[in-house]
Amino acid sequence: MDAAVTAAPAPNGTDARCELGAWSERRLAAVERALVDWVPADAPAGLGDAMRYAVLDGGKRLRPLLVLAACEAVQGDERAALRAACAVELIHAYSLVHDDLPCMDDDVLRRGKPTVHVRFGEARALLAGDALQALAFELLTPDDGSINPALQAALCRLLTRAAGHRGMAGGQAIDLASVGQPLSESQLRRMHQLKTGALLECSVAMGAACGVPAPAAADALARYGAALGLAFQVVDDILDATADTETLGKTAGKDAAQQKPTYVSVLGLARARDHAQQLLAQALGALDASGLDAQGPARTGLLRALAEMVVNRDR
Amino acid sequence: MDAAVTAAPAPNGTDARCELGAWSERRLAAVERALVDWVPADAPAGLGDAMRYAVLDGGKRLRPLLVLAACEAVQGDERAALRAACAVELIHAYSLVHDDLPCMDDDVLRRGKPTVHVRFGEARALLAGDALQALAFELLTPDDGSINPALQAALCRLLTRAAGHRGMAGGQAIDLASVGQPLSESQLRRMHQLKTGALLECSVAMGAACGVPAPAAADALARYGAALGLAFQVVDDILDATADTETLGKTAGKDAAQQKPTYVSVLGLARARDHAQQLLAQALGALDASGLDAQGPARTGLLRALAEMVVNRDR
Repeated sequence: MDAAVTAAPAPNGTDARCELGAWSERRLAAVERALVDWVPADAPAGLGDAMRYAVLDGGKRLRPLLVLAACEAVQGDERAALRAACAVELIHAYSLVHDDLPCMDDDVLRRGKPTVHVRFGEARALLAGDALQALAFELLTPDDGSINPALQAALCRLLTRAAGHRGMAGGQAIDLASVGQPLSESQLRRMHQLKTGALLECSVAMGAACGVPAPAAADALARYGAALGLAFQVVDDILDATADTETLGKTAGKDAAQQKPTYVSVLGLARARDHAQQLLAQALGALDASGLDAQGPARTGLLRALAEMVVNRDR
Repeated sequence: MDAAVTAAPAPNGTDARCELGAWSERRLAAVERALVDWVPADAPAGLGDAMRYAVLDGGKRLRPLLVLAACEAVQGDERAALRAACAVELIHAYSLVHDDLPCMDDDVLRRGKPTVHVRFGEARALLAGDALQALAFELLTPDDGSINPALQAALCRLLTRAAGHRGMAGGQAIDLASVGQPLSESQLRRMHQLKTGALLECSVAMGAACGVPAPAAADALARYGAALGLAFQVVDDILDATADTETLGKTAGKDAAQQKPTYVSVLGLARARDHAQQLLAQALGALDASGLDAQGPARTGLLRALAEMVVNRDR
C-alpha cells in the first residue's frame, strides 16, 4: 500500500521518525499500563469488561501522544500529563463506541475487532460509553494530592469543552444532519473542526496546560493543534477513499457508501492531498514561531514528528 | 389519589412544608433561569433543541434542591451551589434520555411528554445525552474567576464518581442484568444505591462542599444523603406499583411489566412502606446528630422538609 499522501521528506525526516519511534514506544507503554490500572475490571454486571474492551489493546493513541509531546515541549508536569493523556483517550474511545451504534453509523468492525455493541449488546455499549466519559473526568480529579487543584480544574475545563456541544458532540450532530447533503468546503471544515479537530486541539492544549508556556508559545501551540486537527481529518477522508478495510482495521469506503461529504468528495483526491500538505506546513510553521526551540534543544521535535506521522500515515 | 406512603405528620410538618414551598419556589426559579442560560439554544444541527427539550420545563428538580439546601445548611458559596445544582440536574437529565432509548427501557413518555428520541430521533437523543454529560462538567469549571479552582475540582470529583461506573452508570448496568432475575433485598439495595442513590447523595455532598462543614457535620450530611437516596427509590417503586400514568407523568406499572425486581416485589407493599418510613427516620436522625442546628436557627430545616417531601410524595 502506498502512503496516502506523498510528501518530500523533511530534511531530518529519518532522524525525527527514529526519535519519535523510541519515545512513543516508551510513552505508550506507560499510557497502556495506566489505562489497564484505571479502566476498571470490576465495574458491575459486565460494564467493566465492555469499558476495557473499548479502550485497551487498540488504537493509534494519537491523542495521548499529543498530550505528552506538548507537555515535553513546555517541560510540564508529567504526572498530570499522563492522566490527561488517558482522559482524552477515554473520551475518544467513548465517542467511537457510541458512533458505532446502530442508531448512528451502525458499524460492526473497529480496530480489526467486532464493535462493542456487537460483542456486548447495545445497552451495555451505551452505558460503557457513558461511564467512559465520566471516568475521563475522574482521572483528571484525583484526591491524592498528586496534581494541584487549579491544574485539575483547568484540564477538566479544556476537556469538557472539546467533548461537548461546542466540540465533538456538536460535530457529530452536524455529521448526522449532513448525510446526503452537499456541503461547501467551509461547512465541511466547520464540521470536522468540531467532530475531530476539537479533541486533537484539546490534546495539545492539555499538554501545554501541564506547564507554564509564555503566551506566544501557548498561542503557537494552539495554532499547531488546529492545523494538525484538520490535517488528521483530511487524511482520514483520503484513506477512507483509497485504503482497504484490512489495512485500516475499520470498514473502508464507508463515507461514500453512506453518502457523507468528505474532503475527497468536495475537493477531489489531488486537491485533498495538497490540502493535507498545506496544513502540515502550517502546523510546522506554528512550531517555528513558538520560540520553544530557543529554550532547549529541539523542544518541539516530537510535535514535529507527530504532525508528519499524521499526514504521511497509511492507516 | 392517596399519598403512596402515609406518615404521621412531623410535629411542625405544616410549617416545614410552607417554609419549603416558599423557599423552593424562589430557588427553583433561579435554577430554571440558569438552565435556560446555560443549556445552549444554538448548539449545531438541532442538538441544542434536543438538549433543551430534555432539561427545561420538567422534573421535580429534587437534586438541585438538595444541593441548594445542603449549601444553606453549611452557609456555603451560593454561586457555586447554583452551578452544582444545574450540573447534577444535567447528569440526571442525560441519564433519563439514554435510559428511555429503545435499546434500554424503550419508553415513549417522560414528564408527560414524548421522550427525546421519540421527538428528535434516536441518534440525536444519544448525542444530546452525551453533550449534557459534558455540559455538566463545563458548568462546574467556569473560567470567569467566580468559583475558586479547588472547589471546581472538588465538585467535578464528586460528580464524576457519582455519575460513572461506581455510581449511576454501574447501577444501570446491574439493573439491565437483573431483569427477570430474583434479587435479594441486599442486592436490590446495592443496585439502587448506585443507580439512584449515588447522584442524590452526591447532590447533598456537593452542597456541603460549597461550605466548610466540620467533619462530624459532613459525615452526618453524608448519612442523610445515603438514607434519603434509598428512601427515594423505595417510594419510586411503591408509586410505580400504585399510582397511575397520568399522575406520574411517566409510564406506571413498568417495573412489573418488565419483570424488574423492586422493593415492592421483594418486600411486599406494606413492608416497603415501613422501610421508607425507617429511612426517613434515619435521614432526620442524621440531621439531629449533625450539630448544624446549634450553629444557627434551623439550619437543617430545608433538608428535613425535603426528606419528608421525598417520602410522602404522590408522584
